[in-house]
Amino acid sequence: MPAAISVITLLTDFGDRDYFVASMKGVILGINPQARIVDLSHNVAPHQIEDAAYLLKASCKYFPDGTVHVAVVDPGVGSLRRPLLVTTSRHFFVAPDNGLLSYIYQEETDVEVRQIENKQYRLDSEGTTFDGRDLFAPAAAWLTRGQQPGSYGKLIQDYVKLPLPEPAWQGGALAGTIVYVDRFGNLISNLTPFHIKDVQGRTRRSDVSIRIGGVTIDGLLKNYSQGSADAPHALINSNGQVEVFVKEGSAANRLKLGRGGKIEVL
Amino acid sequence: MPAAISVITLLTDFGDRDYFVASMKGVILGINPQARIVDLSHNVAPHQIEDAAYLLKASCKYFPDGTVHVAVVDPGVGSLRRPLLVTTSRHFFVAPDNGLLSYIYQEETDVEVRQIENKQYRLDSEGTTFDGRDLFAPAAAWLTRGQQPGSYGKLIQDYVKLPLPEPAWQGGALAGTIVYVDRFGNLISNLTPFHIKDVQGRTRRSDVSIRIGGVTIDGLLKNYSQGSADAPHALINSNGQVEVFVKEGSAANRLKLGRGGKIEVL
Amino acid sequence: MPAAISVITLLTDFGDRDYFVASMKGVILGINPQARIVDLSHNVAPHQIEDAAYLLKASCKYFPDGTVHVAVVDPGVGSLRRPLLVTTSRHFFVAPDNGLLSYIYQEETDVEVRQIENKQYRLDSEGTTFDGRDLFAPAAAWLTRGQQPGSYGKLIQDYVKLPLPEPAWQGGALAGTIVYVDRFGNLISNLTPFHIKDVQGRTRRSDVSIRIGGVTIDGLLKNYSQGSADAPHALINSNGQVEVFVKEGSAANRLKLGRGGKIEVL
Repeated sequence: MPAAISVITLLTDFGDRDYFVASMKGVILGINPQARIVDLSHNVAPHQIEDAAYLLKASCKYFPDGTVHVAVVDPGVGSLRRPLLVTTSRHFFVAPDNGLLSYIYQEETDVEVRQIENKQYRLDSEGTTFDGRDLFAPAAAWLTRGQQPGSYGKLIQDYVKLPLPEPAWQGGALAGTIVYVDRFGNLISNLTPFHIKDVQGRTRRSDVSIRIGGVTIDGLLKNYSQGSADAPHALINSNGQVEVFVKEGSAANRLKLGRGGKIEVL
Repeated sequence: MPAAISVITLLTDFGDRDYFVASMKGVILGINPQARIVDLSHNVAPHQIEDAAYLLKASCKYFPDGTVHVAVVDPGVGSLRRPLLVTTSRHFFVAPDNGLLSYIYQEETDVEVRQIENKQYRLDSEGTTFDGRDLFAPAAAWLTRGQQPGSYGKLIQDYVKLPLPEPAWQGGALAGTIVYVDRFGNLISNLTPFHIKDVQGRTRRSDVSIRIGGVTIDGLLKNYSQGSADAPHALINSNGQVEVFVKEGSAANRLKLGRGGKIEVL
Repeated sequence: MPAAISVITLLTDFGDRDYFVASMKGVILGINPQARIVDLSHNVAPHQIEDAAYLLKASCKYFPDGTVHVAVVDPGVGSLRRPLLVTTSRHFFVAPDNGLLSYIYQEETDVEVRQIENKQYRLDSEGTTFDGRDLFAPAAAWLTRGQQPGSYGKLIQDYVKLPLPEPAWQGGALAGTIVYVDRFGNLISNLTPFHIKDVQGRTRRSDVSIRIGGVTIDGLLKNYSQGSADAPHALINSNGQVEVFVKEGSAANRLKLGRGGKIEVL
């Protein structure tokens, strides 16, 4: 279990125009004025749990031990879906039980999942439409005040996991999936160096071909600036995933592909 | 008067692209490096004082005692409109005298309104186009350094109040007004549980009807997930206000209504 | 050389939707949990180095001594362009060597430019596509931990400078250039009070004419509220630069001008 320090990240689909995010921050600072709040993102497309899950996977590991990650992309707010407190070897996660933490369950060690039941960590309010402010924000803030995870509620095993796509052999090619499209239109796949090793265990770069959206890309580049604007290229990105890009353009637009699109290694 | 601690919130229509907000933050940290700055919102539509007033009302109360709220939506920047320092029982507010603080005047206790006259709390600059940086930001930062409100300027009574709409009986129905539309297109009204009580004083939920945009909505739901995508529904939201929504859609688009729209309780 | 305190500003074209900015913040807080991170802007249009250079010029000076400004607008990421650490009399700057710091070189004193070579201040990662996270963020964070600039790498002289436009006499008029267009569509030029002095050295206001986009504007106003919506007006803005605006409208749209556009003083 991580030591309690006081960085809290916030990941929501609340946007940056309304009163939602500020209310959460106010609640947190009211409980722990020393908390250091970092916006992970508030511009997840509304209700896109898969996008939020990827953002959390891609950035959470860079935060210091003891960080509390609050993730609220929650189409079922106010319904019976359970609020969760998840601890790993390094971090805490506070989120609804809708699959948002699927990558965390898959990749982290010492994962313990609890249902948040303790009403002490909850704000009273007239409605039941804003769990981000009334439930998740205070639950996170109290953690940074040293409250023990065990005091939040019982361990559970039947939490929701999204069916994360796994690369698989199909007709002589290894077929992967686009798992995220960033603002530049770069297509990020679930293929990693592990999937493109040769028989000696070395990462294939020059002798690998990528098939995507009806196009074949020969070889992996080292960085974006080696690419050109007239065709899609591929590289292993800084998250260790095969990514397809168009230099100073959008691969998503060029190839008319988005999350869930198919990518093959030959 | 609140104790001076060092949370400062910023609410503007400056957007998140230019140098405006960062300049304000730099000025604040130059005066008090310990200040904890929280963005309330910078994406108020340009010059929409009413929207900003609502955002402040909806979120300010969640911040700890002593918080300084800086609000700069200011079509009259540089003109003769007065800069204000307002104290309430819990918070400070720094804003132009254009009605932005109208809900604060209405809802808070121990309200004292001062005109900021003391030039000591002002940055010198060549132009007069950026009071956010040169006047409001330093005024707020010096408050968190312990400067007394009385040192800013004289108490005034003739500050500007927006004509906030109040629900009223019209032809057998209680008529309210849409006071804010959030990014999801939810229509937030000025009707509260107070306006939908029965003769015993209990909040009517199942036996209440809402008329809005030519549509009648029967009963109030408890949360968004009880709604459906094919029709507008209503609930009492987490701010204690009657709100009309379309599940995973926009009530504003569906009903072609915005701020100022009419809503009736039958 | 400035004293090391712990404000770090971030200026990028990464947007506010993805995992990029949060990853940088995580890295910084992992190295120095006391660092105070301020977003300068993340909504620079992709790859627009000139816009980023102006934003930095317009806001950096308001930050306290010792602030570390990190600027990553970097079309050449992963290529051979050099990473820089620049010190001035008051601040540090960490950025790629692509001209982003051109105004700093021009305006600041005691400028020293170093190439960042020390691998100790770098994060290991599989790819070479995210220098913001792996190189610039940790370089900045280690500065706030007291690492000396000299330990980063050798002084260089041949760093890249953008050709910043300078006002010049052309056919009886002083011709300047639009150097930035803000979100309101205001056109900010490189003309300053220095360029509109009369023979006695006083700033001409009423007897000056501005020619821009086929329109002549007579006289400079004192603030936006003196303007009208039906025509462009000019003033000296709070950065001490001649700016053309349309009251509650966009001068850029009205005059069909953008960065690089011509403006003349008669």
